[in-house]
Amino acid sequence: MIMNPDNWLKLKRVVRFGDTDAAGVIHFYQLLRWCHESWEESLELYGLSLDHIFPNLNRVENHVSVFLPIVHCEAHFWESIQTGDHLLVEVVPKRLDVGSFQVQTKFKREKKDVALGKIKHRSINGQSRRPCSLPDDIDRWLEASSLNFGITSV
Amino acid sequence: MIMNPDNWLKLKRVVRFGDTDAAGVIHFYQLLRWCHESWEESLELYGLSLDHIFPNLNRVENHVSVFLPIVHCEAHFWESIQTGDHLLVEVVPKRLDVGSFQVQTKFKREKKDVALGKIKHRSINGQSRRPCSLPDDIDRWLEASSLNFGITSV
Amino acid sequence: MIMNPDNWLKLKRVVRFGDTDAAGVIHFYQLLRWCHESWEESLELYGLSLDHIFPNLNRVENHVSVFLPIVHCEAHFWESIQTGDHLLVEVVPKRLDVGSFQVQTKFKREKKDVALGKIKHRSINGQSRRPCSLPDDIDRWLEASSLNFGITSV
Amino acid sequence: MIMNPDNWLKLKRVVRFGDTDAAGVIHFYQLLRWCHESWEESLELYGLSLDHIFPNLNRVENHVSVFLPIVHCEAHFWESIQTGDHLLVEVVPKRLDVGSFQVQTKFKREKKDVALGKIKHRSINGQSRRPCSLPDDIDRWLEASSLNFGITSV
Repeated sequence: MIMNPDNWLKLKRVVRFGDTDAAGVIHFYQLLRWCHESWEESLELYGLSLDHIFPNLNRVENHVSVFLPIVHCEAHFWESIQTGDHLLVEVVPKRLDVGSFQVQTKFKREKKDVALGKIKHRSINGQSRRPCSLPDDIDRWLEASSLNFGITSV
Repeated sequence: MIMNPDNWLKLKRVVRFGDTDAAGVIHFYQLLRWCHESWEESLELYGLSLDHIFPNLNRVENHVSVFLPIVHCEAHFWESIQTGDHLLVEVVPKRLDVGSFQVQTKFKREKKDVALGKIKHRSINGQSRRPCSLPDDIDRWLEASSLNFGITSV
Repeated sequence: MIMNPDNWLKLKRVVRFGDTDAAGVIHFYQLLRWCHESWEESLELYGLSLDHIFPNLNRVENHVSVFLPIVHCEAHFWESIQTGDHLLVEVVPKRLDVGSFQVQTKFKREKKDVALGKIKHRSINGQSRRPCSLPDDIDRWLEASSLNFGITSV
Repeated sequence: MIMNPDNWLKLKRVVRFGDTDAAGVIHFYQLLRWCHESWEESLELYGLSLDHIFPNLNRVENHVSVFLPIVHCEAHFWESIQTGDHLLVEVVPKRLDVGSFQVQTKFKREKKDVALGKIKHRSINGQSRRPCSLPDDIDRWLEASSLNFGITSV
């Protein structure tokens, strides 16, 4: 069975009052928070267990041996975004090399692009802190997300 | 037609990685952010337009004449909350007097209480900054939320 | 040598644009962030090493054996707080029992009370997750902070 | 009298516990918050009134006629940043054209570069929402900051 990547790459978000600042629009860095949260939501919808991806020193059974620190992030803003806006969120993952990947996140309001974020992660071994290959879970998500992407992506 | 208040008072939330701190659990004040966002979501699900409730100096058509500043908030924590936790959120509104109300928000994980937040708002006139009656929209939401509440609430 | 507790209990904070929301005043839960940050600053000014108080799974030399989770927090707001406001911050610690303490934080603007936050921590053993006595560092800070407090506090 | 730009372009920041996530290091977007707050601090140290730069619908005397929305931001991370780290912050402003500027912010720990943020603002008229020249205050700060910068900057 092949699932349609839209199932885990097309999301929604409603802008909340606490995301705004005294200029009445979202405070810029909140967009990057949304990007990270959309990535987490996408991993879950694809069927992965977040326990195996995000470290947590409180779970004795937690065996995250690979960390995925962010080495770069950026965001572009084209339209102002306000409380109550309903946004369509499109997650566009891309493997960069054997040990790194980026997730681009596009935000639209009524078919119009309003903003875009990009986050690059690289893979390091939790013990040695040296570069290593991406975890299998992330690899599978990247692979599945790229299938037919030329067709399903807008 | 009478809607079941559960439709707008029972919500869900998934805990995200950015909500945690280096102790591996949510950083405490994020819970109060969730409370406010749950309140906003509840107002929307009930059918209200957030444009008429939250001020926005960017919308010329914005006619918010009554502000709802928070005068008190508090939170209790019973269980640690971690990345990926799926929480049930129960919003419990209560009118305090003609010009103020509180929203209690209960968070449960697998039927167990994990945390509780409470936020009190009072109503002030946007021009005079003096106390005034609650806006009609909020009044209706409070009224509808209290119907049969003894039965539907846990 | 006896230091004046004012050295580590009287702080300052300038309100930043990102702390506000579209109503033009601080978004409420930011105040609780300031409370926690003021507590951290106070511990540092008193002379403690934060490495011994806050857990960090990245430092192999990190020996935090006692965690200090927050079990309750609350905040009151009397005056609106806006971008650029210069606030005086007064930290008022209090031991509650052998394994818990609270930190009250008062915010003033030009001698007028504008807001107050309160955070309660209890002490748990990092391994067993059971209640335990407060760490020595916290004990010393609580003790020193209470000296002559009736006189130095406003 | 000519002031040394170091007075308002070289700042300090201590990393707080709430800035971290469950991986034990700062959660990435907090760095962009620090960049914006450093910019605000720099404007103040230079001698400007934030009331004339940041909009606030609550102050009747508030005459901010020009808004400075962010159109792009980015951050690079070279070293992990943890609770209690004392960082040196260097603000590097640059006029891009008559209606836009960027602020680069470099973060160092013990002379080692740990991270860098960059924020681009453009100037729009608060009424018409159309591009306009930068406000005089910002112009003066950009001009003064660039003086002798080849010498004072590291």
